[in-house]
Amino acid sequence: MVTSRLTPDEVKALFSKLSNWGRWGKEDERGALNFINDKKRAAAGKLIQTGEVVSLALPLATTPGPDNPTPVTHLMTQVGHDAHEQQLLPYSGDYFAIAPHGLATTHIDALCHVFWEGKMYNGFDASEVGSHGAKKCAIDVTRDGVVSRGVLLDIPKIRKVEWLEPGDRIFPEDLDAAEKDHKVTVEEGDVLLIRTGRSTRRKVKGGWDPFREGMPGLDASCLPWLHERRVAVLGSDAVSDVVPSGYHGLALPVHVGTLVAMGIHLIDNADFDAVSATCAKLGRSEFLFSMAPLILERGTASPVNPLAIF
Amino acid sequence: MVTSRLTPDEVKALFSKLSNWGRWGKEDERGALNFINDKKRAAAGKLIQTGEVVSLALPLATTPGPDNPTPVTHLMTQVGHDAHEQQLLPYSGDYFAIAPHGLATTHIDALCHVFWEGKMYNGFDASEVGSHGAKKCAIDVTRDGVVSRGVLLDIPKIRKVEWLEPGDRIFPEDLDAAEKDHKVTVEEGDVLLIRTGRSTRRKVKGGWDPFREGMPGLDASCLPWLHERRVAVLGSDAVSDVVPSGYHGLALPVHVGTLVAMGIHLIDNADFDAVSATCAKLGRSEFLFSMAPLILERGTASPVNPLAIF
Amino acid sequence: MVTSRLTPDEVKALFSKLSNWGRWGKEDERGALNFINDKKRAAAGKLIQTGEVVSLALPLATTPGPDNPTPVTHLMTQVGHDAHEQQLLPYSGDYFAIAPHGLATTHIDALCHVFWEGKMYNGFDASEVGSHGAKKCAIDVTRDGVVSRGVLLDIPKIRKVEWLEPGDRIFPEDLDAAEKDHKVTVEEGDVLLIRTGRSTRRKVKGGWDPFREGMPGLDASCLPWLHERRVAVLGSDAVSDVVPSGYHGLALPVHVGTLVAMGIHLIDNADFDAVSATCAKLGRSEFLFSMAPLILERGTASPVNPLAIF
Amino acid sequence: MVTSRLTPDEVKALFSKLSNWGRWGKEDERGALNFINDKKRAAAGKLIQTGEVVSLALPLATTPGPDNPTPVTHLMTQVGHDAHEQQLLPYSGDYFAIAPHGLATTHIDALCHVFWEGKMYNGFDASEVGSHGAKKCAIDVTRDGVVSRGVLLDIPKIRKVEWLEPGDRIFPEDLDAAEKDHKVTVEEGDVLLIRTGRSTRRKVKGGWDPFREGMPGLDASCLPWLHERRVAVLGSDAVSDVVPSGYHGLALPVHVGTLVAMGIHLIDNADFDAVSATCAKLGRSEFLFSMAPLILERGTASPVNPLAIF
Repeated sequence: MVTSRLTPDEVKALFSKLSNWGRWGKEDERGALNFINDKKRAAAGKLIQTGEVVSLALPLATTPGPDNPTPVTHLMTQVGHDAHEQQLLPYSGDYFAIAPHGLATTHIDALCHVFWEGKMYNGFDASEVGSHGAKKCAIDVTRDGVVSRGVLLDIPKIRKVEWLEPGDRIFPEDLDAAEKDHKVTVEEGDVLLIRTGRSTRRKVKGGWDPFREGMPGLDASCLPWLHERRVAVLGSDAVSDVVPSGYHGLALPVHVGTLVAMGIHLIDNADFDAVSATCAKLGRSEFLFSMAPLILERGTASPVNPLAIF
Repeated sequence: MVTSRLTPDEVKALFSKLSNWGRWGKEDERGALNFINDKKRAAAGKLIQTGEVVSLALPLATTPGPDNPTPVTHLMTQVGHDAHEQQLLPYSGDYFAIAPHGLATTHIDALCHVFWEGKMYNGFDASEVGSHGAKKCAIDVTRDGVVSRGVLLDIPKIRKVEWLEPGDRIFPEDLDAAEKDHKVTVEEGDVLLIRTGRSTRRKVKGGWDPFREGMPGLDASCLPWLHERRVAVLGSDAVSDVVPSGYHGLALPVHVGTLVAMGIHLIDNADFDAVSATCAKLGRSEFLFSMAPLILERGTASPVNPLAIF
Repeated sequence: MVTSRLTPDEVKALFSKLSNWGRWGKEDERGALNFINDKKRAAAGKLIQTGEVVSLALPLATTPGPDNPTPVTHLMTQVGHDAHEQQLLPYSGDYFAIAPHGLATTHIDALCHVFWEGKMYNGFDASEVGSHGAKKCAIDVTRDGVVSRGVLLDIPKIRKVEWLEPGDRIFPEDLDAAEKDHKVTVEEGDVLLIRTGRSTRRKVKGGWDPFREGMPGLDASCLPWLHERRVAVLGSDAVSDVVPSGYHGLALPVHVGTLVAMGIHLIDNADFDAVSATCAKLGRSEFLFSMAPLILERGTASPVNPLAIF
Repeated sequence: MVTSRLTPDEVKALFSKLSNWGRWGKEDERGALNFINDKKRAAAGKLIQTGEVVSLALPLATTPGPDNPTPVTHLMTQVGHDAHEQQLLPYSGDYFAIAPHGLATTHIDALCHVFWEGKMYNGFDASEVGSHGAKKCAIDVTRDGVVSRGVLLDIPKIRKVEWLEPGDRIFPEDLDAAEKDHKVTVEEGDVLLIRTGRSTRRKVKGGWDPFREGMPGLDASCLPWLHERRVAVLGSDAVSDVVPSGYHGLALPVHVGTLVAMGIHLIDNADFDAVSATCAKLGRSEFLFSMAPLILERGTASPVNPLAIF
């Protein structure tokens, strides 16, 4: 297996070097979302050409599995059989309970989700996340959606495999190679989606416990690349980070570098099968990306169903 | 108060007269979503001009109230203070539990949500919704999102009031008048949003129990209008139906006429304040509508955060 | 309304004066439960004479109300109608979700439930209750049940009313008078149940919001009485504390004096209707008290169904 | 492995032969609980001699495992660290969600839990368990507790092993041998606890999936023995039934014979380690059994913490 590229100390130094703290003011809670503005969205709108749309989400994970130890609870408040007993109108209804940070749940991490040396993005203290939720950097900074140009970099495609194996590592040169292969350039304000093929492997082989078997993903040396391109949001069909990280004492350095240092929101556990097939079919790797997290005030995450509109 | 326009029997006759059962085949579960295709989405993409985006959702309703007797549960799985005790990485996390059909929740009703004479849309039996969810017409028919031209008809605006009062009734001539006022025409495949001002009144006066005090909404005589225009989805900042309905034995005839007869999905309890202000500012009442319900397989609804992109 | 008896400073002084911190060692987490031993239980066993048993609990509160803003969720995992589809065996099943500290829930408070000046019973720090529960004084100190002599002091009975009104205050002389009337003496290790009649009034008049209308209960001047008698557990059909407390800056001084200072567990929101009727019928106010909280490790409470066996 | 003793048809014939339907009237919902009366409880009270008490419950199962695919959810509503921000009084609180029929949860099955040929105990139709719970034979028939003479038959003890292995079968002659060994006789109205040692094995070897590896328990030929002795309630540290049952087409014949035919409530997944040790130490196998399910109206089960008082 290819090994990591930096030393742990070099990675930690990146957290300072690539920091966006203060870039948008000392009270800012939106981070790299600030790279997206009306002009960016208007330009992204022009990427809608054929009108095809695909989802980038897994179904809510109601079944237990190796990567789903605490499944989503889904229960009926009213089934059809005795619906006629309802006074108002015969109806059916349901209920679900979810902890969105699950490994089988497509979700967006808020900037308050991860801490480094007791702080979240922009230096707010970890204690800002109390018993009743996050007072800073909660997920509802995304309440008006995340709409921008989306770009898919398909790493299994350029490596000519169906999927990367657990523990396989992605480096900056892979990102460059994907851009070259797909004839696309990642720009400021983009939502960058980096495919590992994990969602494909998962459908074929079943889910697995990433902390026992590993997960494909980015080596921490990709952090400067993300910073230079001024990516607004980073999405993965896995968890962005390669597992194991390869850096002693740093289990998820990409999580720290994005969420904490650069204020880049993360989308975890997406399903990139349909979007990668559509990109291949149309010969395009850019599209309108449209995602609207639930407005969970003070939340640390939301389950999401992001769309790619071509 | 203005009274209803038809007799109960005439309304029931509409359920047959306007029926779309079989229109898209006897196994169809998507209903009027079938009016939306790639071409419609491509055309809608051209409606993105300024790049402004607004949310059409209320925040998840975690606080009890007269229209919220069973609030959303939102709890922390990990707060910041003892996050450092986490072995892997200091993080914060949460959990929420929701029954989406709540009156203070912005949600989309699946076509399996309501029954008339023991059947849902396209004649599937109510018993198809069992202990483990809906085997027909579940909410995950929307898994690839609902993206189309969105049109807002702002009834308080044409009546020159801030909001309609609970129990105020909307008729087809109001919809015509709104089109004329806004210089917009509702077309096949549109997502039609009819504003009552309920979300505005709710912010100013607090929530109220609609079954005690009423809700503004459509008279059942609007159903033929929706059918003729071949509306794909109908959204409301209330529940579409006027409450009380004015039709003895028919508590929510618009729910039945849309969900059951015509296969038109409904969005309830949206927040139209921002979109109505933006329409007024820009002098436009059409936009790209983008909504992606969570993929809750076998579900009867999903909480949603729909976006209007101008 | 009868006013409070002490000054706020005198009440605060009681918290020190009546403190049991260190009484059973500096690592003790059981508090006054230490007054109950095998000998006490063996003696209590002899109180079983007729074999009648009554419950002291309300049903789980699944319906919203003024004293129940976050009802217990109760949903079916399997109903009867489609039970035959189950592969193994046709069955029915359900699920419930509860936050036990509700005002309409009969529950036992753990000693970690309340803090005074940042500490719980025996000086453990409030921070011992973290994201994953209580590391000290959790409810599972009661895992082998609470079995002892139970004594009911029926205050409405001695005041010759059906129930005390919200805000009505109970003083030490009332406790003495009840003992005299019932010909019973509260002893070391007893589970003392003090009836206010709140459960009776609630059935007749419906629930009410105690923080708006008040709740009958003990004046803080009763704390020394509880301490002298070496009561093991204190139970109420309300919340033990009178509301409002009458002491500025001390909303629930009996909660603080019992849970924090003396290490006396509290049972809130019991139903004393049946036990008071049985005591009156049999002319006895003592019985075997048997209660077994669920073993919720690290929990701050448990819903309970305590029994009185005569 | 010892095989089953009867034919499937003989087992099914037992369901009729041993039926208690109508025994206590055609509207009866309590089944064999009717064998327990004041006199029985008064006699059981005399079994309290030393005053020792032990719990028969496992802690609530919050950790995933092979016999716990849908763990109990346990979350904090308020931790200690920011408790001081509470206006009323600094406190800690929590919440839990549970589906009580779990294999790692000590619970009591209501008589409505299992169906045979579309019926529950006393011929009530399965459809009586609808979307809002059980209208017949719900768990709240036990609202005044289950208090009676408890008897432990310790099968591993008489077989001179630590525990029975998954799939090990118990026959009527084992029950007779245990009575003889322990010098105890099971009588009408008793709560009979039959130890398999599953809770012991589980602590040593970890939990396992019973439907993959099996579970020790009673062969269906034990049903007549239970009927003759007029047992009121049957408890197990496993699920009473041996798994696999050995009877084609009958996965859990003891569940059916007890719950449906005889109206005997079942306690599953108890922990008999402490009670078996105490019985051995005291040379007694009878005690006061005290259990109070939560009053879950219309429920199919309740988690329980039963007590044995010696």
